[in-house]
Amino acid sequence: MRQSGPVSLPEPSRRDTRLDQYVDAYAERTHGLQVSAVRALFAVANRPEVVSLAGGMPNIADLPREALGEAMSRLVAERGVQAMQYGSGQGELFMREQIVEVMAEEHIHAHPDDVVVSCGSQQALDLVTRVFIDPGDVILAEGPSYVGALGTFHAYQAKVVHVAMDDHGILPDALRQALVSLRAAGERVKFLYTIPNFQNPTGVTQPVERRRAILEVAKEYDLLIIEDNPYGLLTLEGEPMPAMRSMDADNVVYLGSFSKTFAPGFRIGWALAPHAVREKLVLTQEAATLAPPVFSQYAISTYLNEFDWRGQIVAFRDMYRERRDAMLAGLAEHMPPGSTWTVPNGGFFVWLTLPEGIDSQAMLPRAVSARVAFTPGTAFYADGLGSRNLRLSFCFPPPERILEGTRRLGEVIAAEMEMNRTFGIIPGTARHNDLQTGPAPDIS
Amino acid sequence: MRQSGPVSLPEPSRRDTRLDQYVDAYAERTHGLQVSAVRALFAVANRPEVVSLAGGMPNIADLPREALGEAMSRLVAERGVQAMQYGSGQGELFMREQIVEVMAEEHIHAHPDDVVVSCGSQQALDLVTRVFIDPGDVILAEGPSYVGALGTFHAYQAKVVHVAMDDHGILPDALRQALVSLRAAGERVKFLYTIPNFQNPTGVTQPVERRRAILEVAKEYDLLIIEDNPYGLLTLEGEPMPAMRSMDADNVVYLGSFSKTFAPGFRIGWALAPHAVREKLVLTQEAATLAPPVFSQYAISTYLNEFDWRGQIVAFRDMYRERRDAMLAGLAEHMPPGSTWTVPNGGFFVWLTLPEGIDSQAMLPRAVSARVAFTPGTAFYADGLGSRNLRLSFCFPPPERILEGTRRLGEVIAAEMEMNRTFGIIPGTARHNDLQTGPAPDIS
Repeated sequence: MRQSGPVSLPEPSRRDTRLDQYVDAYAERTHGLQVSAVRALFAVANRPEVVSLAGGMPNIADLPREALGEAMSRLVAERGVQAMQYGSGQGELFMREQIVEVMAEEHIHAHPDDVVVSCGSQQALDLVTRVFIDPGDVILAEGPSYVGALGTFHAYQAKVVHVAMDDHGILPDALRQALVSLRAAGERVKFLYTIPNFQNPTGVTQPVERRRAILEVAKEYDLLIIEDNPYGLLTLEGEPMPAMRSMDADNVVYLGSFSKTFAPGFRIGWALAPHAVREKLVLTQEAATLAPPVFSQYAISTYLNEFDWRGQIVAFRDMYRERRDAMLAGLAEHMPPGSTWTVPNGGFFVWLTLPEGIDSQAMLPRAVSARVAFTPGTAFYADGLGSRNLRLSFCFPPPERILEGTRRLGEVIAAEMEMNRTFGIIPGTARHNDLQTGPAPDIS
Repeated sequence: MRQSGPVSLPEPSRRDTRLDQYVDAYAERTHGLQVSAVRALFAVANRPEVVSLAGGMPNIADLPREALGEAMSRLVAERGVQAMQYGSGQGELFMREQIVEVMAEEHIHAHPDDVVVSCGSQQALDLVTRVFIDPGDVILAEGPSYVGALGTFHAYQAKVVHVAMDDHGILPDALRQALVSLRAAGERVKFLYTIPNFQNPTGVTQPVERRRAILEVAKEYDLLIIEDNPYGLLTLEGEPMPAMRSMDADNVVYLGSFSKTFAPGFRIGWALAPHAVREKLVLTQEAATLAPPVFSQYAISTYLNEFDWRGQIVAFRDMYRERRDAMLAGLAEHMPPGSTWTVPNGGFFVWLTLPEGIDSQAMLPRAVSARVAFTPGTAFYADGLGSRNLRLSFCFPPPERILEGTRRLGEVIAAEMEMNRTFGIIPGTARHNDLQTGPAPDIS
């Protein structure tokens, strides 16, 4: 029975051992690129017997695939000559008009001229970073922050400085202090990167008053804000919040995505930017791809036109709410005393803080052996913090699997604690345990 | 009758005149970005009454759209859960396996592990440039070379140095001399960018012996070659040539594309790279997009599996051959004495050299008024050369329109010559006329 036994971990990869003949030819930015230490583990974590609470894949199994297929068939037959041709570097006008309509759900009033379509919102973030960041420039971000954003910032040789947050997001005073001291030190702070809704990885949401306070500090210190909002419409309690961009059109570049409200495989995201920035983004997009995926824009436009996309989002909310509730119930039942976690009102993630003395990254191989996976907290910090934390995703596995996953995780943590009691805490395995990082967690 | 009158040119754009508040915040690389001077003209050139010989859009009207639509419908209905989900940063394995099969048509033996899928081959070029180029590094390229490549190189602040070519492509001795003198001057020469088949913009093809000679120089001087090959299978005479990559797997990064052999709207291209480089490309791709377009890969894979893609390429060849022949016939009939042009054996482009004293960029507005468009030669040089040249595309308009386009172009050139005779050649309008640039043209 494969299902019942532990999973054997992968062999060390048979990496070619000869020297890289190009090593002297790479750009400076390339030398920092590294294969993630957890990548091999995640390959294992994707096996069916493992409950993966690690990834951020949306559950798209409930999309109306038959009807969607028929709509695609008509699209190709009737408009294929346009849909399969080269398109605009900025993105198709009809797509940008529909994006404006989607953003209106979060109180944003925008013009299609100021939208730039991208190959997933990851690419929008990449383009923004490319337009603003010279090596050594500083980017402010929540601590912790989205691992994919940190990767992009790192790829452009930015220095990421984390700003302290509580369970309502970034602390405006901490933001002000960071700006004052960094600028006093001669650092070029280029922008604040923030995820105001159901933040990745903490699940924390900024209330409206907090958004205003952050915007005020930004305005006072002439700081651009990059508002990354992939999850905003996936609220699990109440209506979507007004976006920061809806409160300040001049100082915010807004990043959006169809990956969570429809489907990620089309790779369509976007940036909404002040006019001058938008122009730079379009030129950069042309150099990067000539045009973002054209057929995908026709496909998503067809979906928005012919299907009840708002109703689908309501259905997604109901489905994710059930999964979040399963996770919170499982955590309440299976986490040992001394663990704490956040209670998200939307999105995909819960942020767990382990009892003192446990290192989540060191624990991961044993967790995967016990057939449960998570993302270690250190992945979400640029500065090595987060060893006591981990991110749990409730988006992909069904509720009963989530419950089972938390049960397995509880056993793994209990075993770690037992080991610590038996052998004592091994120095170095639990780095930074003395630092209080991340939001003040809700204890359920 | 809109068709018969001259086209009025666009108003100067009502550019926002307030200062760009972000001007001090941009990265150094952003300051060089500029809206192309010919962009507004090309918007006009896309009007139906204008014969556009300017663009590089393939003609995809003959693809079997009904049957393709049905295949897409089955794809979404049966495999939509995978096809619309996130995918691999390197590209899906099935796609990379099929890409290996496509490359075998040009004698390339490769492993799917060494293929990285990209958002069009433009993005593959962008990733390669990002991996290798620091500001100030030198890239060698044919003179002239693909305008989109020059844009990407510029975006990474590379210095492009053109290498002289004849009608068989880059001159190996000129390549050697360039390497010797640039290295003696302390320049960091990172790679040679070349389009060996039906080069954009000249239409010139390197014979096998020339490829070998270029590869030998590259090996001798430890120079990486970026082989860009979007048109290789679109040969109009004889069989496809062996790719440079088929002759040297260690020193060539090969770039391929489905944009011309199938359809560009899916935005799927790829890089085939030596192992160590491939690894950097994958990490860079992940930071740039998380994953290249996933649905597009399923769509193209479905096309390759279920349709006679080789037969479709043969049909494309026949169609483009007729168009090339129309263009060559039109040029022979309508170009005034003193004009010369290349005779391509494949691809999309003819490179025209105007009679002495005519500046193609200065002539473009008058050509568009006379309802014919082309791309001025200066677009294809990083150093301001090419004023006497222009690129004509035979890919998109049908043969009778191509003939009509060359007739209109002939009249415009004749009028320019008449003006020169009447007023004398205006100094400065015909820059660099004394320099022999580009391949030795065939005179038809």
